Amino acid sequence: VATPELVVDGPALDANIAAMQVLADDAGVTLRPHAKGHRSAWVARRQLDAGATGVAVATVREAATLLEGGITDLLLTSVVAPGRAEELAGLAAAGAALGFVAHTPAVVAALDEAATARGVRLRVLVDLDVGQRRGGVGTPRAAVAVARAVADAGALDLDGVQAYEGHLQGLEDAAERAAGHAAAMARLDAALAALREAGLPAATVTTAGTATAPLAAAHPGVTELQPGSYALMDATYAGLPGVAYAQAAFVLTTVTAVLGLGEVLVDAGTRAVGTDLGPAVVHDLDAVWLPAGDEHGRLRGAVGGLRPGDVVRLVPSHTDTTVVLHPPLAAP
Amino acid sequence: VATPELVVDGPALDANIAAMQVLADDAGVTLRPHAKGHRSAWVARRQLDAGATGVAVATVREAATLLEGGITDLLLTSVVAPGRAEELAGLAAAGAALGFVAHTPAVVAALDEAATARGVRLRVLVDLDVGQRRGGVGTPRAAVAVARAVADAGALDLDGVQAYEGHLQGLEDAAERAAGHAAAMARLDAALAALREAGLPAATVTTAGTATAPLAAAHPGVTELQPGSYALMDATYAGLPGVAYAQAAFVLTTVTAVLGLGEVLVDAGTRAVGTDLGPAVVHDLDAVWLPAGDEHGRLRGAVGGLRPGDVVRLVPSHTDTTVVLHPPLAAP
Repeated sequence: VATPELVVDGPALDANIAAMQVLADDAGVTLRPHAKGHRSAWVARRQLDAGATGVAVATVREAATLLEGGITDLLLTSVVAPGRAEELAGLAAAGAALGFVAHTPAVVAALDEAATARGVRLRVLVDLDVGQRRGGVGTPRAAVAVARAVADAGALDLDGVQAYEGHLQGLEDAAERAAGHAAAMARLDAALAALREAGLPAATVTTAGTATAPLAAAHPGVTELQPGSYALMDATYAGLPGVAYAQAAFVLTTVTAVLGLGEVLVDAGTRAVGTDLGPAVVHDLDAVWLPAGDEHGRLRGAVGGLRPGDVVRLVPSHTDTTVVLHPPLAAP
Repeated sequence: VATPELVVDGPALDANIAAMQVLADDAGVTLRPHAKGHRSAWVARRQLDAGATGVAVATVREAATLLEGGITDLLLTSVVAPGRAEELAGLAAAGAALGFVAHTPAVVAALDEAATARGVRLRVLVDLDVGQRRGGVGTPRAAVAVARAVADAGALDLDGVQAYEGHLQGLEDAAERAAGHAAAMARLDAALAALREAGLPAATVTTAGTATAPLAAAHPGVTELQPGSYALMDATYAGLPGVAYAQAAFVLTTVTAVLGLGEVLVDAGTRAVGTDLGPAVVHDLDAVWLPAGDEHGRLRGAVGGLRPGDVVRLVPSHTDTTVVLHPPLAAP
């Protein structure tokens, strides 16, 4: 085994995909899985085959990668700088059914200009800030202004709003999460009421991550879920209440030396395992992985049975920042 | 500009390369720059053209990448699992003048077997632990045993020892660094004496990182320096006493929204900037970059003059873990 290597447990992945689809279907909403956690057309195809209506992406590069892989129904969930509008219109011209979020009239104008120049139409959602403070519009009045700009633009179709509550995903207390969610949905409802009153009703209302999907699915007015982490999972999400998906992504690493009682050296370091959310854990052993350099790590805990050459599975604390350190995921 | 993007300041890179070469030349030792921080045949070629005798790499994959780029004199500085020996011999058969470090007779046996099968000879150094606790042999007696195994092997050439003092690179106190270095070199000297006594003298004695290069160059017996971070630099090394190289690698990021007084949103997140050694800093502004998700970050500080669309330069806290998040470096 050429470790360190990122591997996927196919049956676990499929079980996760099926479970989230059932959640969406039972609530009567559509599912648009976020692909930023796997960045893989192969995984996205499995999600579409299971019933998803399209996928969400976080960057222009991800959109291009998935389009190359044959995935055409894409929503770019990040607000982009006006300077990228031409590139985005180019993706639409290349065959993508591409949706964008906008947060200022300046971005709307840049998108409209680029779409007009390319002869394409773009679907646009107003990005609402419902508590995350990541660039969305903060008031119902501002939402109406951006929506009006979209509706008045010649090459844009106003489709609705995005109300992603990313600030609630990591909360470890279920009651705190529920209270935060109610507050976020109140902000969403206020914006939706203002848009209706202005004659600009939202057809699509997209929101939710893996931890808030059940709450969002139950909120009247929400039409689409966009969770991502449920597909591959990680140790951080696995520790959250009510999040019951199977771990499907592992980093294989090889023991290279025994350092002492309860400590071994392995060949996975900070360039094989994402560390932004803390140490990884060892699968099926009461032990943790700690970084010991770019290409070295130490396992601490119940590792007395391990010898040089043994291969173990690490569960990353954050799969998103681990996946990007490895070649693109493909069929196991 | 398609941000986030990693860019290199060519003149700063060349100045750093020249300065380290002068340090080595003045001390009468050879320079084998570590390529793990840049992973780029283009940068390695500049280092060789300036006088380096070869490069060091941390992984089999890095060795393969540099070999593809025409760089053939390579030292793999990490101890590898015995199972990778065949792959390493394959690189030698493909034209690499490849050196390895070994820490156990089992690894020596695996390397010898693979080299014999491929009909190649491999240069092997004994990996000494001089305080880092990352798998090297811990006693002069163990060093002699591994060296003897190499000398007795049919397809291996005993070349000397590696005594990397990685545990000293990050120390912020110069006196503490010097004291630690003296202790590390005492361990090296004890191993070298035992090897001489056993009739297995070390021709090559390779050691040093960017922070310890002046100390190592001045130590009698050291023949080769293997620092890496000096080429591109980062904010962590820039804060260390006596480390006076220019910042040569930057992440360009675009402002996407103004969040409030002294805070703006940018399009670089944890998948564009390594965070294992803390937040990045903004070049030429009294401000820091903090992660706000995979693809979002917040600049805090003197950012009142920034508007959406403005592009700023970030100085990563750790270039090694930032470089791997971007396409391979090439000529600016």
